[in-house]
Amino acid sequence: MKQLTWDSQSYRLDGKPLFLVSGEFHYFRVPREDWERRLQLFRESGGNCVATYVPWGLHEPSEGDFRFGDIPQRDLTGFLELCKQMELHVICRPGPFQYSELRYAGLPQWLCDGYPQIRACTAQGKLMEAFSVSYLHPLFLEKTRRWFGQVCPILGAYTQEKGGPIAFAQFDNELMGIHDWFGGWDCNRETMGFGREDGRFPRFLRERYGQVERLNQLYHTAYSSFAQVLPFPDKPRADWEQLRLKDYQDFYFSTIAEYAEILVGWFEELGLRCQYMHNSATPPMNAYFRETVERLGSRFLLGSDHYYNLHMDWDQNNPTPKYATKIFYSNEQLRLMGYPPTVCELPGGSPAEWPPITPVDLKCCYLTNTALGMKGSNYYIFTGGPNPERLGSNGDSYDYNASISETGEIRPTYQAQKEFGSFLRENAWMAAAHMESDFYIGLDWEQCRGEHYAGPGDERGLGNLEAWTFHRKGMVISGLCASYVPEYVDLEQPLPLDGKPLFIAASLCMRRSIQENLLSFVEAGGHLILAPAVPVLDEAYQPCTLLLEYLGSPELRPCTPGCPRVTVGGIRNIQTEALFGCAVLPEGARPLGVEEETGMTAAWRLDKPSGGAVTWLGLRWFHKKNAHLELMRFLCGREPAVSCDNPNVWAVLRTDGTRRMLFLLNLFTSDLHARLRLSTGEALERTVPAMTVLPVEV
Amino acid sequence: MKQLTWDSQSYRLDGKPLFLVSGEFHYFRVPREDWERRLQLFRESGGNCVATYVPWGLHEPSEGDFRFGDIPQRDLTGFLELCKQMELHVICRPGPFQYSELRYAGLPQWLCDGYPQIRACTAQGKLMEAFSVSYLHPLFLEKTRRWFGQVCPILGAYTQEKGGPIAFAQFDNELMGIHDWFGGWDCNRETMGFGREDGRFPRFLRERYGQVERLNQLYHTAYSSFAQVLPFPDKPRADWEQLRLKDYQDFYFSTIAEYAEILVGWFEELGLRCQYMHNSATPPMNAYFRETVERLGSRFLLGSDHYYNLHMDWDQNNPTPKYATKIFYSNEQLRLMGYPPTVCELPGGSPAEWPPITPVDLKCCYLTNTALGMKGSNYYIFTGGPNPERLGSNGDSYDYNASISETGEIRPTYQAQKEFGSFLRENAWMAAAHMESDFYIGLDWEQCRGEHYAGPGDERGLGNLEAWTFHRKGMVISGLCASYVPEYVDLEQPLPLDGKPLFIAASLCMRRSIQENLLSFVEAGGHLILAPAVPVLDEAYQPCTLLLEYLGSPELRPCTPGCPRVTVGGIRNIQTEALFGCAVLPEGARPLGVEEETGMTAAWRLDKPSGGAVTWLGLRWFHKKNAHLELMRFLCGREPAVSCDNPNVWAVLRTDGTRRMLFLLNLFTSDLHARLRLSTGEALERTVPAMTVLPVEV
Repeated sequence: MKQLTWDSQSYRLDGKPLFLVSGEFHYFRVPREDWERRLQLFRESGGNCVATYVPWGLHEPSEGDFRFGDIPQRDLTGFLELCKQMELHVICRPGPFQYSELRYAGLPQWLCDGYPQIRACTAQGKLMEAFSVSYLHPLFLEKTRRWFGQVCPILGAYTQEKGGPIAFAQFDNELMGIHDWFGGWDCNRETMGFGREDGRFPRFLRERYGQVERLNQLYHTAYSSFAQVLPFPDKPRADWEQLRLKDYQDFYFSTIAEYAEILVGWFEELGLRCQYMHNSATPPMNAYFRETVERLGSRFLLGSDHYYNLHMDWDQNNPTPKYATKIFYSNEQLRLMGYPPTVCELPGGSPAEWPPITPVDLKCCYLTNTALGMKGSNYYIFTGGPNPERLGSNGDSYDYNASISETGEIRPTYQAQKEFGSFLRENAWMAAAHMESDFYIGLDWEQCRGEHYAGPGDERGLGNLEAWTFHRKGMVISGLCASYVPEYVDLEQPLPLDGKPLFIAASLCMRRSIQENLLSFVEAGGHLILAPAVPVLDEAYQPCTLLLEYLGSPELRPCTPGCPRVTVGGIRNIQTEALFGCAVLPEGARPLGVEEETGMTAAWRLDKPSGGAVTWLGLRWFHKKNAHLELMRFLCGREPAVSCDNPNVWAVLRTDGTRRMLFLLNLFTSDLHARLRLSTGEALERTVPAMTVLPVEV
Repeated sequence: MKQLTWDSQSYRLDGKPLFLVSGEFHYFRVPREDWERRLQLFRESGGNCVATYVPWGLHEPSEGDFRFGDIPQRDLTGFLELCKQMELHVICRPGPFQYSELRYAGLPQWLCDGYPQIRACTAQGKLMEAFSVSYLHPLFLEKTRRWFGQVCPILGAYTQEKGGPIAFAQFDNELMGIHDWFGGWDCNRETMGFGREDGRFPRFLRERYGQVERLNQLYHTAYSSFAQVLPFPDKPRADWEQLRLKDYQDFYFSTIAEYAEILVGWFEELGLRCQYMHNSATPPMNAYFRETVERLGSRFLLGSDHYYNLHMDWDQNNPTPKYATKIFYSNEQLRLMGYPPTVCELPGGSPAEWPPITPVDLKCCYLTNTALGMKGSNYYIFTGGPNPERLGSNGDSYDYNASISETGEIRPTYQAQKEFGSFLRENAWMAAAHMESDFYIGLDWEQCRGEHYAGPGDERGLGNLEAWTFHRKGMVISGLCASYVPEYVDLEQPLPLDGKPLFIAASLCMRRSIQENLLSFVEAGGHLILAPAVPVLDEAYQPCTLLLEYLGSPELRPCTPGCPRVTVGGIRNIQTEALFGCAVLPEGARPLGVEEETGMTAAWRLDKPSGGAVTWLGLRWFHKKNAHLELMRFLCGREPAVSCDNPNVWAVLRTDGTRRMLFLLNLFTSDLHARLRLSTGEALERTVPAMTVLPVEV
């Protein structure tokens, strides 16, 4: 078989860029007699890869009793042989953890019921679900090693380096989800080593703080050794309590990296030598894998799951602009990590038969993901079947409303996949394309990790979580509505100096090295746009005013008139969720805006002798009003690559330098008309049907 | 002018049924020179009434300085004269509280800033927002009385009994919202009379408990007098803490009724004699007005506000099935209170220009409300204009993206209103129509009041809030998807005995009188379907097992196998959020279902000698799977009035006994096809476009 590889730009087949179009296909559910026909249907829809779990609980039904091939549902090698024969690449997932709506989430019942000590534990000491295992618990690792000892050699015989179909092995599944959703980061005493000087957590703290006195100083505690330190169990109030949560989270993420490295090490040692993969369960979790990404290096590829409707309680049951901004930052994060953005679970159906998954919504979802950077994907699921006896967590069937039903019938959603497949085939050049952007958004990874604690400034609306929300609901949405397309840049990397402004949604804290990076950016001529704060703390929440001093130490404070009237750049009545004013401007700064009732300066611009500039705005807005569009135009100060007269139609241009595809996104329920003008002077007009992404080659 | 009145069936004009089609039209915002043209546009769109605030803060800009007619924005009588001339009925709202996106929510600045003692207060003693007034604070009442003394005589000269256009006066606006959203039920010490034997709260408690010893027994406290009792300030854990919250809430609701009665009394005393109205801010708040409804009697009409999109953070930005079920119970509650269901704020636009309000969504919203019972409505807003100087809380403009813009231009959404108006005119008979239903849903008002405390059973999934959620996400949605249309019945009223089954989503507690009512219902031959619990407590959370004993005291308990497989009535794999089993069946009961792994009975039916029957199911499901459709068919046990083969198309039939209108609701983003059969034998087929309600006369 041809070799499927990847680089930072795209997937590659024998070196040539291609889109990875994978489909979830469980050999243990799809009836064996129908494997070939369904795989053929998948290929005809444009698929080139299939993905499957290899459930531990299925193959080791009682302890030490390993079974492969004895019944059709366990015919793993038969499945791999067929994939090879049909030239379909394979992503295999031998776990240990699976989820997959299997009983005990695919773990063996004998393991979960027989060894309760391996369960994850909350900070309050409560055991989580039976399948919420503590990843690094020695007993769990021991049993996993034995399972891997059986399954890895079988899979290893089918890797692409051996001429087989397996391009990727995925370790575990949606790591951390089973903790996050069932009680918080795992605090299993044995695993984390509380109370032991050589325990994992004490070692982590020693590495971070050196002396326990330093920790006591920052934590406001009086520990006599690192071994005594336990995770902070309550809701944080003081800044130092936030710091304790952050430290524990950083530690926890490092244990995930350790676990991943152990599993990959075993894969390699046991003969499963290929590329490795993992899926972040949701876009907000992508950033939790930074330690893992760093530890595993280029052997490893991270993807993310991008659902829009799994049951009625999802925010929306169809693709929406908010869905689009979420998957956009997800794709951008993956790109900045060096990967071709991969959606490991792209909706192919839903576990709920209602609300429905419709062909219109699916196609819209696929093209929205493509417009916003997706280079590889995996339909979850392409087709299902009956659960192995007594192994389904939700009854006997795993149909998932997939495009090929449990019994093999073709559903209308198959057509959406077929059309998407044709689009990718006809526009194969897009596999190596990139997006044309109009401004940069600075990505501060710390902000993306603030779901469980917001850091200092929370109560003032200046925490990390507020900043992270603001960038998305304010800067990104206002940008897209104004037809200024944002591109994320990693603030820990050298920043691009091509004239496009760099927007930063700032909280009170910013890593010292990022503050330095921003100084260099401005000194080198860059234009920085900062709102609503200027950071005054570093990543350990200790004073760090590099940037503030560079800006002449302006004094910024909350501004709360009864009836705020904000004007910036001549644009009146700009609505904002929070407002900060500047009483005394930095020397040399030029006021750009004012809150009229208090007379406070709400924005200024400071031009540096270097040619660089900093614009500060005291606003933290959510996109609402046309004034926000004007604000974006004013701040960007140049024509966009594509200008569009309808703020409800988002226009995104992708190019490989030669060809260009303009995507027009209408994620609303009415047909929308748009008049567009490209920077090349080309003009066009289109009516974009409701809930449709229209690709236009320009 | 003709007299606009109402009865339990409909609005009436000189005695003939008609739809009330009102539009929000603020004389203080719409430029006076354009009043007539815009009112004419409104009439042409089918409108017959306009509604306006009469802002206190505008007409008494400094204390004691009352102004009417000095500037165009204060030309109240000019506006009323014009409405009279144009034969448009008027709903006027002299407050005292307004909201209306005015500064201090329409209250005078001098009042809010000058008299901070009138502010509402949280249970923790924190002051709320400046405009969150404590309704019954003596000083607030005194100032209000003076304002009413000025404004009521002016309005009173224009009531319809005097030949004027005013059909309704609304007191206040969205009562309780300013407390609920900014800190909880008001605990202002002076207002509530804490610490005083003759204070409001002590008096309430004395009336409820007689002796403080009885209260101590139930509260697990040791007060020596009612005056000592304070609201419970924390999150409730124990049942008796839930009871304390409930008592305070019941008390608080009684103060709302007292406040309403005072305001209406002043209206009458000061010459504003007409029909009175108020708007519940959201459907979940309707039930908070029961005391007010009872106190004011037939002088009063309650309506509710039915928005679907006010900014990007609404669950959905277009009508959805969940929106439909919310406004459905809202309309049904209003109907059961004896009113023609009235939507006091029906979307006419949105304060946010993004996400957009589209003609498609609006028309869908209007017809969804009509299909589900709306008899009167008020577009919020029909048209706006500039805010009076310095009085807008969100800048200078109040455009609201309404169908007639701030500057008077006609927007595409006007067409949606025009089409809706034509529909109502062409089908005027529908004003007196009712819905044809297939089963009953029992409405327990206590359940609707459990937003802030769930009552006992919360942690077991058997609290009031869980039951209330279950009825809506389970019974109602499964019913509508299976084309069995539910109709709410008030469990405190005599229950209908026409062969349709009565479904009850039960919590652990149920008012004793309701338990008695249900017994009578079954004894009279009714079929009661009860899930997932049988109540064992009364409304004061004290043991009350009338119903349980009537059912032979079955022992029900949580059933939590690792991998539940529930079969009921031969329908396999029924998914449920919580599951209860019955170990020993009541004598004479016939098992209907089983959880296969544990062997526990999951459902049974008990036929009574009276001919009545009780079916119990241990399920609390959210609609997800086609098995839920089958379950509804099994439980209803008869053909529906309309059967529809597409669960995503909801079919609702309305009739006046002579004519019949079938509404086909497609609240999804794809066109949907449905084949329907009426109980009359008539068959039809329709493709319902995405996000569309199709009315079909049958």
